[in-house]
Parts: sequence; structure tokens; C-alpha cells
Amino acid sequence: MRFKIDREQFLKGLTIASKAIGSKSPIPVMMNVKMVLDEQGLSLIGSNNDLSIKTVVPYKIGERDIIRDAQFGSTLVASRIITEIARRVAGSELSFEIIDDTIAQIGDGRSSFKLNSVRPEEYPEIDLDPTGVQVSLDSKVFIQMIDQTAFAASGKEQRPILTAVNLEASGDYKLIATATDSARLARKEIALPNPAKFVANVPARVLTEISKLLEGEGMVNLSINEKKILVSFNGTIVSSRLINGDYPNTKNIVPRNFNFFLEANSLELIAAMERVSLLSIERENVVKLSMSDFGVEVSSKSAEVGSAVETIGTCQYTGERLEVSFNSDYVMAAIRACQSEDVTMAFLGEMKPFVIKNAKDESQVQLVTPVRTY
Amino acid sequence: MRFKIDREQFLKGLTIASKAIGSKSPIPVMMNVKMVLDEQGLSLIGSNNDLSIKTVVPYKIGERDIIRDAQFGSTLVASRIITEIARRVAGSELSFEIIDDTIAQIGDGRSSFKLNSVRPEEYPEIDLDPTGVQVSLDSKVFIQMIDQTAFAASGKEQRPILTAVNLEASGDYKLIATATDSARLARKEIALPNPAKFVANVPARVLTEISKLLEGEGMVNLSINEKKILVSFNGTIVSSRLINGDYPNTKNIVPRNFNFFLEANSLELIAAMERVSLLSIERENVVKLSMSDFGVEVSSKSAEVGSAVETIGTCQYTGERLEVSFNSDYVMAAIRACQSEDVTMAFLGEMKPFVIKNAKDESQVQLVTPVRTY
Repeated sequence: MRFKIDREQFLKGLTIASKAIGSKSPIPVMMNVKMVLDEQGLSLIGSNNDLSIKTVVPYKIGERDIIRDAQFGSTLVASRIITEIARRVAGSELSFEIIDDTIAQIGDGRSSFKLNSVRPEEYPEIDLDPTGVQVSLDSKVFIQMIDQTAFAASGKEQRPILTAVNLEASGDYKLIATATDSARLARKEIALPNPAKFVANVPARVLTEISKLLEGEGMVNLSINEKKILVSFNGTIVSSRLINGDYPNTKNIVPRNFNFFLEANSLELIAAMERVSLLSIERENVVKLSMSDFGVEVSSKSAEVGSAVETIGTCQYTGERLEVSFNSDYVMAAIRACQSEDVTMAFLGEMKPFVIKNAKDESQVQLVTPVRTY
Repeated sequence: MRFKIDREQFLKGLTIASKAIGSKSPIPVMMNVKMVLDEQGLSLIGSNNDLSIKTVVPYKIGERDIIRDAQFGSTLVASRIITEIARRVAGSELSFEIIDDTIAQIGDGRSSFKLNSVRPEEYPEIDLDPTGVQVSLDSKVFIQMIDQTAFAASGKEQRPILTAVNLEASGDYKLIATATDSARLARKEIALPNPAKFVANVPARVLTEISKLLEGEGMVNLSINEKKILVSFNGTIVSSRLINGDYPNTKNIVPRNFNFFLEANSLELIAAMERVSLLSIERENVVKLSMSDFGVEVSSKSAEVGSAVETIGTCQYTGERLEVSFNSDYVMAAIRACQSEDVTMAFLGEMKPFVIKNAKDESQVQLVTPVRTY
């Protein structure tokens, strides 16, 4: 195995593949990146048990040579080290050669590295074949779906199913993504180009990584079977196991009718909550929203330190006098997810879940449960 | 106590004073900043047992009002909270008022905070009077002295004296600063405007903070007695206790004559060491410099991962063939401290301490002890 490669493209590929490689693994060989040079280009494969990524660095991008002087072959090298080498060397092209089956020699003419390499047969078989239901989407639509839901999944492993985003298509032209940590819920509906029927509980953490990798890409293809989801785009395939178990039924959680409505500027609301939450010390991030015909205020207090209050200037409130307390981090995240200049908050009562929405966009729901008012 | 104050200047003062306030303290009242408004301006005082800082926000800067509507008084408020308030509120001016002796009301017309305040009598007396030997210096000279020495002090508390920078003036017109962690040593001599005689072991950590605060200032005044050092400049006084004990005698540690000399470009040498040290895995950061008439190389190796080697292009070596291994972090820090485009490394032998110096600057010495060659 031997080749010369554009350093930047090599680094880009290594960075993508290594996202699936942890900093520790019970199986030492999985700390390596698998490199395969064949007629397609240089495939770089990283994997832990749950997540695998394969990305292909092509021979050419447009007219520009990316890989040259190629002699096919494959090997395993320490992922962290080779990525750091590709990052730090000064030259624009790297040469790579396997010597004696056990040493990878890498250099740019100035620096020269010899890394102990491992024969590719030592690496477990990674199945990246698409099986099951197929769906193609504009990557922008998929990114937005992730960004508007994945943050609301649980970060705690006590109930693993809540660390997933639930993707569900019921045989028609739509896909519904739902995430909840049981104190808040985010839901987004997107249109599918073809009718499809599937349910997949995908780790939210994986989707968030995919959302970053998809930045600036075109179309994305999903393949979903009962065990895993494959997401492929522009030379890269991400495969993630699904989380076992039934996702909780959240269909009837979101109220349909509300009694109280606040329309406000998103940035102003977020800025006020950030300032006021400075005084939420004993009960972390809890703030109170007090609304009436006379005005709208955000406030917080701490027995130990003091209190804070801020009037929301640019807003319109419809309803009786109402006070609702909540985790301001949750509400700020929901406001950001609306991705709009103004948001509407709709309430049923002091202790009932309330929604935050972009009045012009019916495709998503952000729901937050209040906390007891102090 | 009541005043209105320019938010940015208030924040700047709070940020300076709070550098002396830890995130925890066995004495809760020390978590407060002491605020005193009198004819001088607003004094902000922060302290832990070892370090105290007082900074004064003046009534005017040039023609511009910084503090207005002043009613003298003093109080204690939670340092972290008031600093965050000054950072986050949107207005350019803050109002501050003590109500009922126990509440500090702070606002910018939009946000309003009430902080529990503590009466100033609860705060311990902080002695910031200059006593002992007085020295005035250009702050640039003092900053350079710190930057070229403090990094070499020990970060470990086993031998507290080595966490200090030793400042010594022997009654003539010079001040010598020395720092060592026993594996390396940095020394810098600066000229004094008046003859002075003192010894002071100042915590390196404190000097590094002072160096940052001094950025862009004019003259700095030092007052040194047997217990403490006072550093004052432009409305700010920093007082630090000295570290007890005798500083080790390092006068004869630096060799006067050398057998081998390497002149090289500083940036190139640092870049090569950074790359090669990627493979210093089992012995963290150890690299080997191999020098002879045929060329100069930096290399490292790891039994587990592999090896790296890089040729230093732009350099000149004088002497017999020599190989020296060392902690590359130490040598890179010493090269940076030289603050010059080229450096000279001078050696006596494989296992003898060597120096890194700026050939044009006799005022400083950087000494590093080699490690056993593998």
C-alpha cells in the first residue's frame, strides 16, 4: 500500500472517520482507523460498537489531483496519532507507505513518521450495506429537523430510550421526529418525497454529530431497518445502532387549545432570561414569568443572594393575570429552536405544560413543563 | 451609599479586584468584594489570605464622567454575582444604591437586581500601605522580567519555595529574578533606577496575574518588606505575601563555558519539536536532538506507536557529534522566553545542563537539564 495525498483532504477524512472512535475502547484494535486504498479512492473507517463511519477521499476533486502514485492495499493505524500528524505537518502533500506489513511511513519531505501498523484482517467486519426502508432528503431539511429536536432528548442513561430521537413515518409522505427528556418535548414534521413506513429510535448524540457533518452538503440518503440506521451523503456513510425498546406515546401530550398567549421578540426574551437567571442559585435556572395587562416581567430570587426582575418591553400579552415558573435553560433552548425573530408562548394555566412556537411554522412543537412557583 | 457608574469601567474594576477572590473560601465574607465610595472614587477590594487587590474607579477619565450622583458609603456584595451583573446587563450606565443597610439595588433601567449586602465592618482589615524598600520601574520592563522567568517556577506544592520567583537586589542598580522547578532554570537581570537591597520570594502565579494586569500601563511601583510585596500602578494596588524560607543557591548552576553550539530559527525549532513530540508517548514530551556536521535532527520514539524524525533546515552547528534528550515542553518554553527570531543552544555534553539564549541579550539565561537518552 502506497500513495501521496493532499494533506487537507486527508485530514478532513480522518477527522470525520475518527468521530466514531472513542478515546478508550475495550477492544484496542478499534482505536485504529482502517484505511483501504482501491479504485474508489482512500476509504477511512472508524467504529465503536454503536457507531461506524466510513468516508472516501477521492482521487480527484474536479480537475485537482487529491491522491496520486497509488498502490492498492489496506492497513490499520492509530487514529489519534495519524490525525494529529495530518493536522500538524507543514507540507501540502503527505506520502504514505506500508513497509514490511507492520510499519506505516508517513512524511511531507521535512517530517518523517514511522507508525506501528496492524494488518487489516484484525479489524472486525463493519456492515455498511443499505438495507430496509430508503428515504432521500435535502440535507438542509434533515439538519433543521435534528437541530429543532435532538437538544430535547435526555442526557441521562437511566432511561436509555429517552436519549433517542424517535423518527416515525406511518406510510404517508411525512416523517415525525420527537425528542423528550420527560420535562420537555420537541417535535418536528418534515415532508418525504415518497411514502415510507418505519420507526427508528436514533441516539440524539449521533444525530447531532451527523447534523454537523452534513453542513453544506446536498442530498442525504437514509436506510432504516430494525437494528440500525445508515445515513449517507457525498462519500460518507454513518451507521448507528438504534436504541431498543418502545418510545413513550407522546401523541396526546401537546394541548390543542390555550387560554393565555404571549408574543415576544426571541432575542429580547432570551437576553432577559439570561440576566435574570443569574439569581437562580438554589434552584438552578428557575425563573418566573409574570404576565398581565399591566406588563410582562421575568424574575428570579435566591434566599441567599437576592432577587432580579426585568420588564419585557416589546411584547403582547392576551389573557388573565398569570404567573409561570420554569427552567429558563429549557425555555431558551426551545425559543432558539423556533429559529424565528418572534415567538408565541401559549399557556393553559400555572402548572400546565406550555408551548413555545413560531406562529408562522406549524411543522414544529416545543413543549415545556412548568415547575412549582416559589 | 449611592452612585451611577459607567458599566464598562465598573466591570473592569470588578474583574481586577475579583482576581484575588477564590471560588471558595473558608471565610465566607471573603467571597465578597468590598466597595468604598469616597472622594477618591469607587475603591473595589478583593482578597484571600495570600493576595489582596484594590483598584479605584475614578470619577472622571479625561473629561468623561465615570461616576456621578455620588453619596459616599461602603458595603460588601457577592463578588461573582455583581461582576456577572456588570457583564451581562445591556445599559451603558448602572445605578447602585444601598437600601436599609442590607440590600444593594442595582439596575440599568431595564434589569433590576436586589443583592443581599453585608456591612463593611464584617470585612477584615487589609493592609495596603507601602512599607520597606521602594522601587519604580517601567511596566514593560517588569512584564518582560516576569514573562521570561515565572513559567520556570514549579507548579507543585511539595517544595513551596520553588513555586516562587526569587527577586534579589544586592544594593546596586540591578534586580535579578530567578525561577526554577529543579529541572530547569530561568534568570533575568533588569536595571534599577536607584540602588536597592532586598530579597523577595514572590509566588510565580501572582506575578503572572500582575503581568497581565500591567499590559498597556506606564510606571509600576514596588514596595517590598520581609512579609510582603506591594505592586501599584494606575489606581491599582496588588499585595502578595512572600513565600517563607531561603531560596536555593542557584548562582553557580549556570555553566560559563560550552563545547557545542547550535544556532537556529526559533519558530522552526519550536514547530519541529511540536510535531516530533507527537510520538513521545510513554515518556511525555521527551525528544532527542542529534547534531553533527552532517545535519541537525529532532526525533522521538514510542515502543508502542512508532517514531518521528525531522531535519532542522535553517541552522548552524559547531562542535563534535552530540545527542541530547530533553523535555521538549521545557525547551520550547525557554525558546519562547528568549523573545527573539533566532536562538543559540549551548551544550557541555550529553548529560550536562544546557542553555538556550538570545545571542544579542546577555540579560537572561534559560537553563534546561537533559534526561537520559533512550
